[in-house]
Amino acid sequence: MTHKLAVLPGDGIGPDIVREACKVLEVLRADFGLDVAWEEAPVGGTAYDQTGHPLPDTTLELAKSADAVLLGAVGGPQWDNLDYTLRPERVALLGLRKELDLFANLRPAKVFPELVDASALRPEVAEGIDIMVVRELTSGIYFGEPRGVEELPDGRRKGLNSLVYTSDEIERIARVAFEIARKRSGRVCSVDKANVLEVSQLWRDVVSHVGQREFPDVELSHMYVDNAAMQLVRDPKQFDVMVTTNMFGDILSDEASMLTGSIGLLPSASLSAEGAGMYEPIHGSAPDIAGIGKANPLATILSTAMMLRYSLDEIELADRIERAVGQVLADGLRTPDIAGEGERAIGTAEMGDAVVAAL
Amino acid sequence: MTHKLAVLPGDGIGPDIVREACKVLEVLRADFGLDVAWEEAPVGGTAYDQTGHPLPDTTLELAKSADAVLLGAVGGPQWDNLDYTLRPERVALLGLRKELDLFANLRPAKVFPELVDASALRPEVAEGIDIMVVRELTSGIYFGEPRGVEELPDGRRKGLNSLVYTSDEIERIARVAFEIARKRSGRVCSVDKANVLEVSQLWRDVVSHVGQREFPDVELSHMYVDNAAMQLVRDPKQFDVMVTTNMFGDILSDEASMLTGSIGLLPSASLSAEGAGMYEPIHGSAPDIAGIGKANPLATILSTAMMLRYSLDEIELADRIERAVGQVLADGLRTPDIAGEGERAIGTAEMGDAVVAAL
Ligand SMILES: CC(C)[C@H](C(=O)O)[C@@H](O)C(=O)O
Ligand SMILES: CC(C)[C@H](C(=O)O)[C@@H](O)C(=O)O
Repeated sequence: MTHKLAVLPGDGIGPDIVREACKVLEVLRADFGLDVAWEEAPVGGTAYDQTGHPLPDTTLELAKSADAVLLGAVGGPQWDNLDYTLRPERVALLGLRKELDLFANLRPAKVFPELVDASALRPEVAEGIDIMVVRELTSGIYFGEPRGVEELPDGRRKGLNSLVYTSDEIERIARVAFEIARKRSGRVCSVDKANVLEVSQLWRDVVSHVGQREFPDVELSHMYVDNAAMQLVRDPKQFDVMVTTNMFGDILSDEASMLTGSIGLLPSASLSAEGAGMYEPIHGSAPDIAGIGKANPLATILSTAMMLRYSLDEIELADRIERAVGQVLADGLRTPDIAGEGERAIGTAEMGDAVVAAL
Repeated sequence: MTHKLAVLPGDGIGPDIVREACKVLEVLRADFGLDVAWEEAPVGGTAYDQTGHPLPDTTLELAKSADAVLLGAVGGPQWDNLDYTLRPERVALLGLRKELDLFANLRPAKVFPELVDASALRPEVAEGIDIMVVRELTSGIYFGEPRGVEELPDGRRKGLNSLVYTSDEIERIARVAFEIARKRSGRVCSVDKANVLEVSQLWRDVVSHVGQREFPDVELSHMYVDNAAMQLVRDPKQFDVMVTTNMFGDILSDEASMLTGSIGLLPSASLSAEGAGMYEPIHGSAPDIAGIGKANPLATILSTAMMLRYSLDEIELADRIERAVGQVLADGLRTPDIAGEGERAIGTAEMGDAVVAAL
């Protein structure tokens, strides 16, 4: 059966980097027997300019009917003053997550041995970082109701957002984290603020319960979010799998990925219960270097590997892509963002070609 | 007029470090004309053991009637299984903050030049970090109602916390940040999540408004919290004053202080509109080294300096304490937490005595 993909290049460098990922897919199709077909659709600011909405119905339908979605990047300064209800990042990303029920966001933060020097951390602290942040993605304060700003009778304004989790939402994200830990070093650290928030107490309680009952072989620890933000800096290697809420996960996964110094290389996956998923680099749309061949396509190519692994069940081909990326890095190939001082940098397309050659 | 202080040593190393701070106060009283008197009271787990409550009424009354509160540290494993409504950190700290209306939490994150090597960051990234995090402390999701966990008819449980800010709450914390920036390098970065949360949009709007109308001389920028967590790692020196909500401030100030590598040296202040304040080290109660003379009293001594500066208006004496601490560090004196490999470490009391001698 042909795997059906939706490819959404998006804004800024999105089209540049997605083009290289599609090169890789094309080679896997032509030479390695990957049975895959894809269709492109606009999303984000580009879609807003074309259709008046950052997530057009046709794009959403395509994404829903696909086995997996490959997304480039979304947003840019020209859309920053749009009304809240039309802002590309919010509407397109949150819309896709919610509509496809992509509740599990996997964000690996891994240091590539060749790029240890790109980290702000001392080499001995950075070397060997390999964390998988599992972030809940379709609930919590991002989606909780009631929400909004109202004017009080005395003229003051009052803003409200609601942090809401139900036990079943916590159970399913906990299971994802435990399953992943089983395939890694068997440790999960659940991050919350149970000393202050009732939602966090429920979170801690449910995660513990799932762990004890269904994953007694996985080691579970709990950490407060403020301490986690510190421990990530002090000794990131203590972490294997971290599982947390939407908001804490947003903050901690960004902190963790910046620690690696390899932000142009980090992929992410957002999965639904049915195995569908959306795959995207964690970096942004970098409008300042869009269209001029300077973007690093490796994070998107590695996102494609995650797609093969998690949604298409093509583990062998996923491994192959990851080995190819490791190879080009070992060969010293660098896009400008990861080139050290005095190192020669190659362009977006050259990097894509190099990965293809290494396949 | 005699400055009246409430001294609350608390748990773990709290009494050890507060003792040294009181030595310093005693010398300032005896030799430098500081007109000060203080009274001690129990707080935290110690207070719970003595009275059945982590924040006894007598302690609260003492704190309310004082010009300033000096707090050691609160909490420890023996109280970790107490019911939520009796947990020392939560009840004592949140109780004091709310009852004294300590809405402005100032948390400097500063690298001491002698201790650059204690940071997990590369020396060139760490050197010169000097950030003041201004955290809102009496509102937001910490105190918002409604809150709690309920059982749904279908047996699932649902947890709720409310993130609430009113415009006047945002105005007053913004003013504190702008005022402080005027005395520093004149830049404020306000951190929010305005691309997702309505409360953050209100926050951004109000902070901008206060800035434009009352502090046109201060440079104001805005940053999303996930990006702030990254930028703190990538290039912490870009920040001068950061202002943010209670929850984001909890996370970012801990991250920032860990970046400095000098966590045993960092003080904090929590201020009310009337100038009263509570002063405490940012580190915890470290029960494993309590009572054995290994704790570092410098953060508490520097908290005392902040107290003189912000609540007692004794700027000259505050400077004097800070210079004395700089002196002992320059002299190479180190408690175990900050001693480098092979460096001789001194004890808590010796360190306090050294500061006194340097005064
Ligand atoms: C753009 C924004 C809505 C989004 C989020 O907060 O989830 C982004 O920061 C991310 O992490 O994907
Ligand atoms: C102990 C806890 C309630 C407290 C907080 O979250 O405010 C602590 O982390 C702090 O930062 O003072």
